[in-house]
Amino acid sequence: MKMIDIIGKKRAGMELTTEEISFFIQNYTDGSIPDYQVSALLMAICFQKMNMRETSDLTMAMVSSGDVLDLSNIEGIKVDKHSTGGVGDTTTLVLTPMVAALGIPVAKMSGRGLGHTGGTIDKLESFTGFSVEISEEQFINNVNNNKIAIMAQTADLAPADKKLYALRDVTATVENISLISSSIMSKKIAAGADAIVLDVKVGDGAFMKSFEDAKELAEAMVSIGKSVDRNTVAVISDMDQPLGFAVGNALEVKEAIDTLNGVGPKDLLELCLTLGSNMVVLARKAETVEEAREMLIKVIEDKSALKKLKEFIVSQGGNSNQVDNTELLPKAKYVVEVKSEIDGYVSKIDSQHIGLIAMELGAGRATKEDDIDLAVGIVLNKKRGEKVLKGDTLAFIHSNNENKIEKATKDIIDSYHITSENKEAVPLIYGVIR
Amino acid sequence: MKMIDIIGKKRAGMELTTEEISFFIQNYTDGSIPDYQVSALLMAICFQKMNMRETSDLTMAMVSSGDVLDLSNIEGIKVDKHSTGGVGDTTTLVLTPMVAALGIPVAKMSGRGLGHTGGTIDKLESFTGFSVEISEEQFINNVNNNKIAIMAQTADLAPADKKLYALRDVTATVENISLISSSIMSKKIAAGADAIVLDVKVGDGAFMKSFEDAKELAEAMVSIGKSVDRNTVAVISDMDQPLGFAVGNALEVKEAIDTLNGVGPKDLLELCLTLGSNMVVLARKAETVEEAREMLIKVIEDKSALKKLKEFIVSQGGNSNQVDNTELLPKAKYVVEVKSEIDGYVSKIDSQHIGLIAMELGAGRATKEDDIDLAVGIVLNKKRGEKVLKGDTLAFIHSNNENKIEKATKDIIDSYHITSENKEAVPLIYGVIR
Repeated sequence: MKMIDIIGKKRAGMELTTEEISFFIQNYTDGSIPDYQVSALLMAICFQKMNMRETSDLTMAMVSSGDVLDLSNIEGIKVDKHSTGGVGDTTTLVLTPMVAALGIPVAKMSGRGLGHTGGTIDKLESFTGFSVEISEEQFINNVNNNKIAIMAQTADLAPADKKLYALRDVTATVENISLISSSIMSKKIAAGADAIVLDVKVGDGAFMKSFEDAKELAEAMVSIGKSVDRNTVAVISDMDQPLGFAVGNALEVKEAIDTLNGVGPKDLLELCLTLGSNMVVLARKAETVEEAREMLIKVIEDKSALKKLKEFIVSQGGNSNQVDNTELLPKAKYVVEVKSEIDGYVSKIDSQHIGLIAMELGAGRATKEDDIDLAVGIVLNKKRGEKVLKGDTLAFIHSNNENKIEKATKDIIDSYHITSENKEAVPLIYGVIR
Repeated sequence: MKMIDIIGKKRAGMELTTEEISFFIQNYTDGSIPDYQVSALLMAICFQKMNMRETSDLTMAMVSSGDVLDLSNIEGIKVDKHSTGGVGDTTTLVLTPMVAALGIPVAKMSGRGLGHTGGTIDKLESFTGFSVEISEEQFINNVNNNKIAIMAQTADLAPADKKLYALRDVTATVENISLISSSIMSKKIAAGADAIVLDVKVGDGAFMKSFEDAKELAEAMVSIGKSVDRNTVAVISDMDQPLGFAVGNALEVKEAIDTLNGVGPKDLLELCLTLGSNMVVLARKAETVEEAREMLIKVIEDKSALKKLKEFIVSQGGNSNQVDNTELLPKAKYVVEVKSEIDGYVSKIDSQHIGLIAMELGAGRATKEDDIDLAVGIVLNKKRGEKVLKGDTLAFIHSNNENKIEKATKDIIDSYHITSENKEAVPLIYGVIR
């Protein structure tokens, strides 16, 4: 088998066999196929596409390129959740204790992220003493005992995906449904998921700008999941404004706690209930999403989800008093109001932009080496559809650096689209693909 | 300017600017843009195409990537000729003395080829003592005195093309009209041509399999030539069987001498007259191709072209007695007839296959390091349209290795398509693009 023939076949619009896809991934991972042949194939794939069979094969070839987590010592169906990337997305922090409270095992291996805010691990480190450096044995014990644990990623999961993604990033071959969907699914499958709930974001602040594109991606991932025996459900949700109010690490932790206390933002709760009810059904703890939704509302009302969060924090060395009293979480020196300069209605909040402002304040990493300031970020005060008058507070800046406030203020004002007429409401949930 | 943006632009089907094309070629040549980005761009070009403006810009950017020969010390219009690659194509050896005999300067810088048979330099080394290792001064003097000289390529002509071609060859991005045409034209322009006559081969044995493809390539090259002030004419000629009878170095030299003596194969002579008359017109030695053709027929009849060949051989140290007596050229130990096993008509001779058999006999190089056996090759005895009876001689194998004869015999029989009915005649010249 020769790589040039595989490139030529795809260039000509032909279907690649399972063997050809596996040959290419295996030999690219071990370095025997050079980048320049792979980038030519990737570009040919962008034009000629891959069908579902090829996409599933690509996914499983990437899974096989490295370690696959063996979670068989954990009882129950392991349901993982993945978001295609939103701004101020606190769902994981809310959802995981909710489903764990229902006895569904949450076993997450997590890395530190690049971007607007830190990853889940970074956010959890807002709790003094919390650590993800636990042994695999402790990890599995914790999940079996408490139904919830998160450990730092030690295994080499889907290295082919990592290598391919880096190449796609510099060769203008990122945007292709098969390449995007196989990349996401390979990582989830390698991380040991039995079933997967996906949150596909749509809107100006998301990777998928239109509902049609988001739907296509969602369908591709659900189809991959089914074809490789991982029941998968995708929720398509709005990202034309940040989710909830908080964008920043400790700020999002506080918002998650508020939500588990029943006093969080409505959109965040609603999305968590939608994603969560699908997770509960996939884990076979409920027959229908309606039934699952009632169960999830109950674990908030009776505070058992909040209790689960505290158990989890304590089991990994963290201080659960910070859950009871969020004033103990890291706090920024300066909290400054951003005021509207005009009257009107909030028609859109540029999520991407808000995310970048938070990063500039120190909430996220631009490069892997950057330190994160857990305390800083933005808390929105007005969201889409709300009426604002000149002088009303649009948002609060949380900063530890006085010099960054002026620019952030100006940038936040620019991110708010305020129009004289109120625009038609955009749904939070566009649909669910099963 | 960033390479990823250039790739993305072409992926999206947009036109690249002159500056973008020049940026990419310049930085690829000096190594600051990596192969993997270039192969992605090349694949995007294969799908989205380049328009004529982009193709001309690409050509001139490749010309500027290295040395450009300065032939201004040679009087007259320098007309170069290029063939897109045929089997048994002896035209250069016949044509160059013909046009030189009319006072048109022939100044060729040549490399050694890979493939079925050697390049022009290899073939000329069939003359004992002949050398292309002459100084630039001697080269220019020879052209001014004798109108003809060939020297080994010392200059670094179009290095970008060399690098790009090597990459295209391993990334399935060879086949694209803009990439093929700019590659050919950049080399000719860098080699100092004022005007160019192209021989675009069409047929199963050629790179372009259909007349439509050949015409598209011919038109692209003529258009590039015109847009950069190099008058260019393209002849589209048949390659559904080898040209002439001989395939092999000394064998082709003998055939060239026969043709200059007026006793060569008709198809070879006809193609030389067509290409040559266009060269004569481009060199402004005749008003019309009809007039030019008469002039060329005359230099064969009065033997002045043959005399010119001898002058040329002698001026570069060769033995011109071998022209007068071709028995003195390198000869193979074994000459073996290949006989037809059936009755019928020759409907096609697989040129590509015949070329490979000649290479296996030792006439060509598979890798740069291989030695060439100048004596060996194949001489066809029956060509397309001829009736053959079982036992008739189809071809002669010239070999220095007894063990290679059996396989070559079998392979040659396989290359001859013999059918019970005579197929419609295929023209030698499909058309001329000006």
